[in-house]
Amino acid sequence: MSLLVVGTVAFDAIETPFGKTDKIIGGAATYISLAASYFTNNIQLVSTVGDDFPAEMIEELNKKGVSSEGLQIHKGQKSFFWSGKYHNDMNSRDTLATELNVLETFDPILPDSYKNPEFVMLGNLTPSVQKRVIEQLENKPKLIAMDTMNFWMDIALDELKETIAMVDVLTINDEEARQLSGEYSLVVAAKKIIAMGPKYLIIKKGEHGALLFNNQDEAFFASALPLEEVFDPTGAGDTFAGGFMGYLASTKDISFDNMKRAIIYGSAMASFCVEKFGTEKLMDLNDLLIQKRIKQFVDLVQFEISLSDK
Amino acid sequence: MSLLVVGTVAFDAIETPFGKTDKIIGGAATYISLAASYFTNNIQLVSTVGDDFPAEMIEELNKKGVSSEGLQIHKGQKSFFWSGKYHNDMNSRDTLATELNVLETFDPILPDSYKNPEFVMLGNLTPSVQKRVIEQLENKPKLIAMDTMNFWMDIALDELKETIAMVDVLTINDEEARQLSGEYSLVVAAKKIIAMGPKYLIIKKGEHGALLFNNQDEAFFASALPLEEVFDPTGAGDTFAGGFMGYLASTKDISFDNMKRAIIYGSAMASFCVEKFGTEKLMDLNDLLIQKRIKQFVDLVQFEISLSDK
Repeated sequence: MSLLVVGTVAFDAIETPFGKTDKIIGGAATYISLAASYFTNNIQLVSTVGDDFPAEMIEELNKKGVSSEGLQIHKGQKSFFWSGKYHNDMNSRDTLATELNVLETFDPILPDSYKNPEFVMLGNLTPSVQKRVIEQLENKPKLIAMDTMNFWMDIALDELKETIAMVDVLTINDEEARQLSGEYSLVVAAKKIIAMGPKYLIIKKGEHGALLFNNQDEAFFASALPLEEVFDPTGAGDTFAGGFMGYLASTKDISFDNMKRAIIYGSAMASFCVEKFGTEKLMDLNDLLIQKRIKQFVDLVQFEISLSDK
Repeated sequence: MSLLVVGTVAFDAIETPFGKTDKIIGGAATYISLAASYFTNNIQLVSTVGDDFPAEMIEELNKKGVSSEGLQIHKGQKSFFWSGKYHNDMNSRDTLATELNVLETFDPILPDSYKNPEFVMLGNLTPSVQKRVIEQLENKPKLIAMDTMNFWMDIALDELKETIAMVDVLTINDEEARQLSGEYSLVVAAKKIIAMGPKYLIIKKGEHGALLFNNQDEAFFASALPLEEVFDPTGAGDTFAGGFMGYLASTKDISFDNMKRAIIYGSAMASFCVEKFGTEKLMDLNDLLIQKRIKQFVDLVQFEISLSDK
């Protein structure tokens, strides 16, 4: 089934305790598309780049089933650039540079062939831009998911709430869930956020895993895989979302039980992402590696318990 | 099967964002014994109190199957007292007062009837005191577990390492695992710590759950239950250990699969503990409540995945 992906396609320069990169390819929509491409080959990308963005990367995406018809390439302009440095705990980071460039005037125009997707993943962007995407859809998709961040809660809360009310799934991290709800308990926070409109909330806790809540008071928790080495956390949340939505799009099943599986697939994809800098690890995975990784998740968390065995 | 529990029996005064207590009953061995008492009625307690400690509490413990033959009651002396204040995030706290009192001269003398336990849980104490307990055992128990904390890593590391080398299971939190191993990755930390002697390592991550590692490179992760309200985290780790060891003692099975179940039972007991101040919630639980809580854990984390369903 078709998956519409909207978000940044960009350059990053990253410094972690393990090393430092020059300008490498990044951007939420890049990570989302790459992760989803292991599940579905019908991905419609909407984004914006300058003519400094390498044609080879666009070809790579095309080969992986990602249509670039909706990728705007602006002659004589530069792609969005972000640079950041992670602290020793890898959980916090300082932004060293943000150059919006083409992103400043980004209008997410959907080609006609993109207007009837069955699944939509809106990467982190100005909430009004995310909303503009939804407004161009001709039919109600099976599922619209959006990611956002604390920055929009600080400067565009009303706009953000409007957009949140239009989607089915919201993905944010634990601190953002607390900020958006004003509640410390994630259980209470989830209830308040779901009351804002989305049927599902995914709270990403990084190395501590992810929580899925629905509007029926059901909850699911997926551990992150404890890794020997986390090399670069950049893009892990987007990769998670890409795996999650790619799996849902490939199985065409949005039951809560299937969403649980999708969370596990998303977590597996994120666990690969952080093992190398940038998108490197996502470029050449395969089904066998993914299945092996899923098996590790199963082994890590599954247990047999009889409710009368004590 | 018999479970020997050694640790503090004490008074606490606790302040959290939700309220404040006067002197209430606390102490690692109290929490451990109470939690374990829902699984086994053959608990042998070794600790020390002053004559300010209420006889009614000792009677309560006796009723729950906890022998107090090894509880030293020192006339004219005062029980160990700790007072602390939790910050808003409930994960960090300041110690306001520590009065060692009887603990200063604690010699953990095992009555003869205690010298052949099948399971041993050493609550957090001076490592040399924990070692003294092990030295009095007449036969090798099925499993010896010990808890410790960063304080001993700071001031008595060599002694601590000696004691760790004598036990089967070590329980510490994530920061302590990092400190003890000098490694940030918990996977690498676990390997280094297991190389120090224990066959099993449990890393407690509070609201983020617990990890179990063994010396066969196997790992298991158990989520903590996301709660609407965490009232008071005091004793949660000890309650976890008590549930874990109580379940193992009752099932007499130390296979890795059964340890996974024990971790779930420990997590369930800890989830009760934090819902009220001090030991209050642990005083009158029952099998039905515990089974219901276990069901919540199963629902939270279990998923069905076929390794070829994508």
